[in-house]
Amino acid sequence: MEEKEISQAVISRLPRYFRYLGDLKDEGAERVSSQELSRIMKVTASQIRQDLNNFGGFGQQGYGYNVDYLYEEIGKILGLDRKHHLVLIGAGNLGSAIANYMNFEKRGFIISGIFDVDLTLCGKKVREVEVYPMDELEAFIQTHDIDIGVLTIPKAAAVEVANRLIDCGIKAIWNFAHVDLQVPDDVLVENVHLSDSLMKLSYNIATREA
Amino acid sequence: MEEKEISQAVISRLPRYFRYLGDLKDEGAERVSSQELSRIMKVTASQIRQDLNNFGGFGQQGYGYNVDYLYEEIGKILGLDRKHHLVLIGAGNLGSAIANYMNFEKRGFIISGIFDVDLTLCGKKVREVEVYPMDELEAFIQTHDIDIGVLTIPKAAAVEVANRLIDCGIKAIWNFAHVDLQVPDDVLVENVHLSDSLMKLSYNIATREA
Repeated sequence: MEEKEISQAVISRLPRYFRYLGDLKDEGAERVSSQELSRIMKVTASQIRQDLNNFGGFGQQGYGYNVDYLYEEIGKILGLDRKHHLVLIGAGNLGSAIANYMNFEKRGFIISGIFDVDLTLCGKKVREVEVYPMDELEAFIQTHDIDIGVLTIPKAAAVEVANRLIDCGIKAIWNFAHVDLQVPDDVLVENVHLSDSLMKLSYNIATREA
Repeated sequence: MEEKEISQAVISRLPRYFRYLGDLKDEGAERVSSQELSRIMKVTASQIRQDLNNFGGFGQQGYGYNVDYLYEEIGKILGLDRKHHLVLIGAGNLGSAIANYMNFEKRGFIISGIFDVDLTLCGKKVREVEVYPMDELEAFIQTHDIDIGVLTIPKAAAVEVANRLIDCGIKAIWNFAHVDLQVPDDVLVENVHLSDSLMKLSYNIATREA
C-alpha cells in the first residue's frame, strides 16, 4: 500500500464507502459490483474502482466485491480495527450529543472522560462517562491511554485548551470550536465548522435563486 | 459575476475567508494584503487572489483589500445579506446545541420552530424557540416563511421527515442524520456527517503511525 500518495479527497470518500458497505452487510448482501455501488452511492463506477485501487483494489474482475471483506478492509484502512480513547472538553449540548452517540463507541471510539469549566456539571455523568473539572485534565490524560481530544467548547477557550492537550502529548484533535487551531506539524486536527457548513448551504440557496 | 462556473471547492473556502475577515474587522484592521491574509490563513496568496477573482476580485493592485468591504461582499455572496428561517427537527442534544448557538442568529439564520416526536418536550423552549409536536410540522411551515429544514434526528427517521419537508416546499436541508438523502434535483442538501469526520481523523492517525 502506497498510503503516502493518497489524496485527502479519496480519504474523505472512504467513510462513505464504509457506511454504504455497512448498510449492504446489514441487508445480507454478499457481493456488490462497482456498478451497483455506483448506483446507490451516486458516484461513477470508474471513480469507485480508482478510489479502491489506491489501496490495492479488492475486486476480482467480473465478480464484484465481497461485501464483508471490503467492509473489513476499509475499516482497517480507516484505523477502525483498533480502539481509540478520547477526552471530550465541553459538557454542553454539543459535547453531550457526541458522548450520547453510541455509534462512535461501536466503531471503537471510547470517550474515557469529559471535562468542563462548569463545576456544577462535574461529578455528573453523560451516559456512563463522568464529567471532571478542567484542572484534572493533565493528570487524567497521563493515567489513561488517550489519543484523541475533542473540543466542544467556545472559540475563546479552544486555543488554550488545545495547547494543554498538545502539551500532554495528544496528537489528534477533533475540533468543533469555531477557530482554526495552529498546531505543531505532528498534531492532526480534524475540524467540524458548523457555521461554514451552514454558510455553504446559504451560498447555494442564493446562487440557485439568482 | 459568473457564479455558475464556481466550483464547490472555492465555495467551501468562502466561509473561511468570511470568518478571518470578521476577525480582522473585530481587531480594527482596515486593509489587508493577500500576503497577510495568506500568512494568517495558511493558504497561498495566489490561491486567495484566484478565489476572489471568481467573484470579480475586490482588491486594487498594491493596496490590498478593504477589510470592511470584502467582509460585506463575501457576506452577500454567501447569502448572508438576507434572513433565513429554519425549522429544526429533533430537540435532542444536537438540536439544542444548534438552537442555542447565538452566532447562527447573528448571521441571519433564525430558528422559527423546533419539532420533536417526544411529546414531553413539546411546549418547552430551547432559548426562546418553542418545541412543537411533529404533527404540527406541515401547518407551521405553511404559515411561516421557512426556507431551511435542519435534521438532527436519527438516521431511521430522517428519510421520512426529509420527504415531509420537501412535500411542504422546503428546498434546502441541513442534514446531520447519518444517511445520504435522496432528494429531487431542486432541493439542496448540506450534510454534516460527524462519523465520517471522526473516521477521517482515525485514518490519518493510522497512516501517520504506519
